[in-house]
Amino acid sequence: MKQKKKLQVTFYPENKTVKVREGENLLRAAMAAGVHINASCGGAGTCGKCVVKIDSGEVISQITEKLSKEDLDEGNRLACISSVVSDLSVSIPVESLLDKSVLQRKPKKSTSFILETEELNKLVPKCKTDSVVVKLYIELTKPSPDNNMSDLDRLSLALKKRYEIDLPSTDFAVIKKMSKILREADWKVTATIVLTSRGSKLINIQPGDTTDKNYSIVIDVGTTSVYCEILNVCEGIPIAESSDYNSQISYGEDVITRIIYSQKKDGLETLQQRIVHTINSIIRELLDQSGIDKENVTHLVAAGNTTMTQILLGLDPKYIREAPYIPVANFLPPVRAASLGIDIQNSAYLYTFPVISSYVGGDITSGVLGSGMFLRDELTLYIDIGTNGEMVLGNKDWLVTTSCSAGPAFEGGGVKYGMRATKGAIEQIRISPGEYEPMILVIGNVKPKGICGSAMIDVVAELLEVGPIDQNGKFYPEIDTPRVREGDSGYEYVLAWADESQLSSDITINEVDIENLIRTKAAIYSWCVVLLNNVGLTFRDVDKFIIAGGFGHYIDVERGINIGLLPEIDTKKFTLIGNGSLLGARLVSLSRNMLTEASRVARMMTNIELSNNKMFMDEYISAMFLPHTDLSTFKKTMKRLEGLWEKNKQNNVK
Amino acid sequence: MKQKKKLQVTFYPENKTVKVREGENLLRAAMAAGVHINASCGGAGTCGKCVVKIDSGEVISQITEKLSKEDLDEGNRLACISSVVSDLSVSIPVESLLDKSVLQRKPKKSTSFILETEELNKLVPKCKTDSVVVKLYIELTKPSPDNNMSDLDRLSLALKKRYEIDLPSTDFAVIKKMSKILREADWKVTATIVLTSRGSKLINIQPGDTTDKNYSIVIDVGTTSVYCEILNVCEGIPIAESSDYNSQISYGEDVITRIIYSQKKDGLETLQQRIVHTINSIIRELLDQSGIDKENVTHLVAAGNTTMTQILLGLDPKYIREAPYIPVANFLPPVRAASLGIDIQNSAYLYTFPVISSYVGGDITSGVLGSGMFLRDELTLYIDIGTNGEMVLGNKDWLVTTSCSAGPAFEGGGVKYGMRATKGAIEQIRISPGEYEPMILVIGNVKPKGICGSAMIDVVAELLEVGPIDQNGKFYPEIDTPRVREGDSGYEYVLAWADESQLSSDITINEVDIENLIRTKAAIYSWCVVLLNNVGLTFRDVDKFIIAGGFGHYIDVERGINIGLLPEIDTKKFTLIGNGSLLGARLVSLSRNMLTEASRVARMMTNIELSNNKMFMDEYISAMFLPHTDLSTFKKTMKRLEGLWEKNKQNNVK
Repeated sequence: MKQKKKLQVTFYPENKTVKVREGENLLRAAMAAGVHINASCGGAGTCGKCVVKIDSGEVISQITEKLSKEDLDEGNRLACISSVVSDLSVSIPVESLLDKSVLQRKPKKSTSFILETEELNKLVPKCKTDSVVVKLYIELTKPSPDNNMSDLDRLSLALKKRYEIDLPSTDFAVIKKMSKILREADWKVTATIVLTSRGSKLINIQPGDTTDKNYSIVIDVGTTSVYCEILNVCEGIPIAESSDYNSQISYGEDVITRIIYSQKKDGLETLQQRIVHTINSIIRELLDQSGIDKENVTHLVAAGNTTMTQILLGLDPKYIREAPYIPVANFLPPVRAASLGIDIQNSAYLYTFPVISSYVGGDITSGVLGSGMFLRDELTLYIDIGTNGEMVLGNKDWLVTTSCSAGPAFEGGGVKYGMRATKGAIEQIRISPGEYEPMILVIGNVKPKGICGSAMIDVVAELLEVGPIDQNGKFYPEIDTPRVREGDSGYEYVLAWADESQLSSDITINEVDIENLIRTKAAIYSWCVVLLNNVGLTFRDVDKFIIAGGFGHYIDVERGINIGLLPEIDTKKFTLIGNGSLLGARLVSLSRNMLTEASRVARMMTNIELSNNKMFMDEYISAMFLPHTDLSTFKKTMKRLEGLWEKNKQNNVK
Repeated sequence: MKQKKKLQVTFYPENKTVKVREGENLLRAAMAAGVHINASCGGAGTCGKCVVKIDSGEVISQITEKLSKEDLDEGNRLACISSVVSDLSVSIPVESLLDKSVLQRKPKKSTSFILETEELNKLVPKCKTDSVVVKLYIELTKPSPDNNMSDLDRLSLALKKRYEIDLPSTDFAVIKKMSKILREADWKVTATIVLTSRGSKLINIQPGDTTDKNYSIVIDVGTTSVYCEILNVCEGIPIAESSDYNSQISYGEDVITRIIYSQKKDGLETLQQRIVHTINSIIRELLDQSGIDKENVTHLVAAGNTTMTQILLGLDPKYIREAPYIPVANFLPPVRAASLGIDIQNSAYLYTFPVISSYVGGDITSGVLGSGMFLRDELTLYIDIGTNGEMVLGNKDWLVTTSCSAGPAFEGGGVKYGMRATKGAIEQIRISPGEYEPMILVIGNVKPKGICGSAMIDVVAELLEVGPIDQNGKFYPEIDTPRVREGDSGYEYVLAWADESQLSSDITINEVDIENLIRTKAAIYSWCVVLLNNVGLTFRDVDKFIIAGGFGHYIDVERGINIGLLPEIDTKKFTLIGNGSLLGARLVSLSRNMLTEASRVARMMTNIELSNNKMFMDEYISAMFLPHTDLSTFKKTMKRLEGLWEKNKQNNVK
């Protein structure tokens, strides 16, 4: 994940320019530029509809039977199977442009971005040079009859003299192998040392100079998915990333069912083994990808909710679920990763993020850290959207937090063709006014087999904008397109026809699906209102609105506002940080100052229990509308929507 | 090993009184009083010669066929199978008194004693109240919706509030079981906490109040034998003791052969498993004896030489044996005992004593600590006599140390019938002038099968005093007794006839045996001279002469002087402390101040390498005589010996 070049792509005849990373898919670049290209196979290269012409610059394309040699010689390519490798001028043929009105949309806001390492470093400038685990090269004086101090004293004194490090303790495994390594390496070794506020600890010794090989692995232990990165600690940059399902899923979809399973005979052991199995398979992939020797992984940092953290460490989560909902510990000591079964060298410790309560976990501490909100003067509202929504409100002086049950719509639950954001999921969608034809992007550039959370927002927002549904989320039955029809669960919209999908049936979204999405968005929105109200504030007071969650990568802020998931505030105030937990874990793995800050942040955070709050139900019911029943809070949105509706009506009349 | 009552035993007609502990063997009491009773079976109750009459008081005797009902009714008992259970008056019949001159000997010096706990406490007054591992009872407030902090925070805060203890770390195993125990014990628990200079660590949690159950196990890991005690940490007293051979013996008798074996395939693992096996069997016995639950053993302390310490911890001892003789570490961190295979609860740590060099080990640090010499103004010479002799000279301001190869004579090596001080070994001996008949005491009160180190000193001193040998250790062939005769290795003295022994042959001591003993005593004596000389001192400057070693329990200081093993200085200056290592280990297990002191003492000690010292050989050759060729250094001894010889001559002439 080294920093890639930014390239400029201009689409003609619309003359829309967008900056993308080297290697970006050309269809995605068009989506980002707000340029509509017909594409119904989701980027699988099978429908052949997304032909574009490369006027200047270079793309790398896959071979396809959809284009003849002549087509290719003329510079025609299928956008969905082409990667941007230089600045480009691209012409879109008329047949790929169904409706001009799509082009009038604004390009994706630049406020919707994933924080990059440089930005993080700007946020948290101290993170580079003070990793919690350092490697120090040292050449020792050889022992002689006049200088016959013990091996450990020799090493300790040398470290003190050379690096001013007092070694109060040494890992026993180092003591065991030290004498042999010192002599075999001719007294030239690299010491791996953990630096903590309570003194330093020698945890490994390696022959020769390996100081440039100091890697960490950071892990976001999600209830559904596990994301890992391997980082170069010296340079402070991610090297490789990978993820997988948490294989505990077969024992329950959410934390409650996992806790219940953990109370069965050998249940906790089984769940612990499953998550370790998942982590091990990801680590193996990371090491394979990066070619890094696991001997040089010096430490691991994991962030997860309280239940996931406790199960990973083999701590019974029983009391998380029983009133008054007590976690085992807020601050868990670092644990030797190998002792948990993690397949890594014995000297590496796993650090976990402090948890706030049974229902506000280390993933939130990590997210707050990764977002930098704890350093800023501005009032920030941080939300992490998943099956549970977690919210943190505050600034550098105070932080309050709460969690709500958002419902599973954003993770693919309660939606007929809903699925997690993995290969085959529709992740972005645009619908052309008038024809109501969709432009879809599918994760993995394959035929679609379902729709993920962020695309649910897209599709509801689009259906609302271009006309097929009303503000209650119900279809207008009179709408004139074969894509809107009556199904088993009320009216539905066809996102992809069976022959364009991986399924034997059409992929649709129906009124029940939309209702579930409305419930979820209403819960999150009203929970934020109640949290703000609890400290005497409203959305107007929020300076910065940070959205995290794997989900948060793709969310379109404007569409989020359009459906009333997000409040109608200046879109510049929104920041999408993607996987916030992983960002925080990254920082901690690079900086022992950040490790200390994580504890400070956790102590700063006050958990507010809103589950019995009387205001919530009123707010929730008001929010069960698109965008909201209280139109005064969504004035601009309503004005825009009404403008669009009027225009669509005129177009249709024409 | 609770303190037993001291009882007074008076032997008639000699009117000699001795104080002994309740339960003492009556024959031993007589030996201690300097009263001769004929006894040739070594206390097995088989020869029937040691008949005594109990005039008043009570003894417990074993049944024997050697005494009739009438004998018993008259108060006659066999001394060797009787235990003192009250103050006694005992008459010794004429037939049990072979020679009156034996009685003229002084009773055993009161300077020859084993330090008792009270004395130790006087020496080291701080040891009682500040154990390195404490148990604290605490009742916690139960969690509620208004007070829902995590279990660990709840416990930590309560400990801080109640006992002013800041907990910087918690053992992970405690975190694992804490939640369950807290609830099952209704929030009333006992916390086991290690207190160190670097902060405290919670290592165990038990339901209810177990604060009065805090036990430690201390271990002297000898090359030959392993001694253990279990101590009540709260009261600072030993509860039970036991010992066994170090089962590594089958892989070599001394540290060098053990190191060589450790270099074979799986050699180190095998040796480590052997010593752990030995320790486990002793611990099992201690727990059985004392009825103590191993869950309440909170810590262990081991003292051993550098090689034994390293092997116990699984640290390769290879470089101890290769110039320039480097140990792995002088200060080894405490290790979880269970991780070494020691069968004790998982939370208990094993502390080892700091070593000074490859050849001056933690047993010496421990001995110096146990002897209290590091606290005193007086110049002390501490010697630990074994196969290697270790010496420490100094006071509270400075300590120098060296080690010498003493030869194996005191451990039963190089002596035809020599054996270790175990069951069946003659441990004390007196020889009657004129008849040259022996009075022997055998360990375990069984028939003898050999002679141990301390009895070697006795027998050589007695033979010299009563006449059969000259000052070169050679027998006068003309001596008139069947017990002196010519054998395969020159002349020899019969200690026990075959029918009085466990062997099929007579047990003898011959001129080669005596020469080996002379070599050993000469080495130790002259090594002390050289060490003193090295710092510009002589024996005259020594205020206190401490003798340690399992061996040291039995050594008779006067006889040690008579043969020239010990210098001719005021016998009041000698102190026998028995197993010095175990004493020091006891202190450390009771007092964290002593743990700190152990490190300070180790740092204070300067190791002096005397192996190439030119003075040594001259001193050694001078000392190869009984007591010494330089008679000016043994004036009083010579005067006494000459007086005895004159008297014996007259008696024999009479």
